[in-house]
Amino acid sequence: MVILISNDDGIYARGLQVLYEELKSLGKIYVVAPDRERSAVSHALSLHRPLRIKEVKKNFFAVDGTPTDCVNIAINGLLPEKPDMVVSGINFGPNLGDDITYSGTVSAAIEGCLLGVPSIAFSLATLDPPAYFRPAGRVARRIVEKFLETGIPQGTIINVNFPNKRRCRYYKGLKFTRQGKRKYGEAIVEKIDPRGKKYYWIGGKDLGYENIPDSDIVAVEEGYVSITPIHLDLTNYRLLQELKKWEDLWNQQLLNNPG
Amino acid sequence: MVILISNDDGIYARGLQVLYEELKSLGKIYVVAPDRERSAVSHALSLHRPLRIKEVKKNFFAVDGTPTDCVNIAINGLLPEKPDMVVSGINFGPNLGDDITYSGTVSAAIEGCLLGVPSIAFSLATLDPPAYFRPAGRVARRIVEKFLETGIPQGTIINVNFPNKRRCRYYKGLKFTRQGKRKYGEAIVEKIDPRGKKYYWIGGKDLGYENIPDSDIVAVEEGYVSITPIHLDLTNYRLLQELKKWEDLWNQQLLNNPG
Repeated sequence: MVILISNDDGIYARGLQVLYEELKSLGKIYVVAPDRERSAVSHALSLHRPLRIKEVKKNFFAVDGTPTDCVNIAINGLLPEKPDMVVSGINFGPNLGDDITYSGTVSAAIEGCLLGVPSIAFSLATLDPPAYFRPAGRVARRIVEKFLETGIPQGTIINVNFPNKRRCRYYKGLKFTRQGKRKYGEAIVEKIDPRGKKYYWIGGKDLGYENIPDSDIVAVEEGYVSITPIHLDLTNYRLLQELKKWEDLWNQQLLNNPG
Repeated sequence: MVILISNDDGIYARGLQVLYEELKSLGKIYVVAPDRERSAVSHALSLHRPLRIKEVKKNFFAVDGTPTDCVNIAINGLLPEKPDMVVSGINFGPNLGDDITYSGTVSAAIEGCLLGVPSIAFSLATLDPPAYFRPAGRVARRIVEKFLETGIPQGTIINVNFPNKRRCRYYKGLKFTRQGKRKYGEAIVEKIDPRGKKYYWIGGKDLGYENIPDSDIVAVEEGYVSITPIHLDLTNYRLLQELKKWEDLWNQQLLNNPG
């Protein structure tokens, strides 16, 4: 079994180390990860500049790029063999609900998936230390084993979030969940800088969430390990069906007389 | 009618100007856009630094942040009223298939949608000049009018791509489409720099695409204006259903004896 590990906290992050320690018994491990923290870079791909790669130890490669770059470069050329799975994490911080669209950790898994490799993203749902990666890593290994066994359908990634518990037995259990929703409020802070000029800060640390049962957010809040299947085809097929009925009419109205 | 326009090519981009000219007859327009090009920044939100806003002319605000920042800050505090629609673009370059996960243009629409405002992203599918924004803008206005009339379901954005045609009548028509898929190849270039050190470049300009009928990519290739409904709930509900059957078993196997 060949596994590629990446993350967005950088190659020296503790979450990645723990994941490596846990997964190395499963087969051959390659680590290709950013050379420093690259959180909230989302799914950016560096097309306009060259990338440098440094093998910091055997089969550990640090790249001066985004998590997406790392996975892309690993699968498309750096590794001598195609991995059986891409595992991203363990991120220091949650990747839940709508926030996953911002996530570098999840992006690494998405890139793996786009390149045809089954992919899982792991995150530890705490913003402050102490962060208990050990128990998360232990369960992560079991989840990886399970999905290596069952497979993951093409075009889908698995997004896992751990509540921050000191021991495995403090987890309430596993829950398969749907993507939750953050609540947004008016969260812009307007301030004056030392030179008397206005500046703005997007913020509010905790914006809350909608209480959707079975959602990833609620599961983690309740102490469960949340496992969400996420697919990459974003088409709203129901609406597409609906709109298609109007195609002829719209064509007549919009194009024959575009004003 | 109040419309917020943003983009990722920056507030001085031609595609935005054309969109503004076309939409201004529909009601009150606010433009809040990056102060310079912010392509491929994806859905990044600037949480760790302050943002500066400059009103470059009446109701035109330049922000030193990402498209997502712009829409967030506009809706959450900058504008005196909530817009009826967020319109992003017209992007210079396509936003088709899997690539939309990298797109700043689409991210602006996603942010609008997350904040509860119906949102549309417009892109012109050419990488090289001449870029024919005028006819695209004309049809964009009609599409905006249509969706202001019909509404857009919550949690869904509309992603529109124009083929690059000199006149409206050269468009073959409108097509409601699904998200297509790029084909990925081994596209890493390894080179040696002037100091004899290796570097890598992610590339290959045209990686091609899968020939999915009804996909956005194929529609634009054939000369149609492509309109794709994109939803933000990424949950793969079919797989979730499947996995839920295994929840008890997994719980027994994974947590009772986590190794």
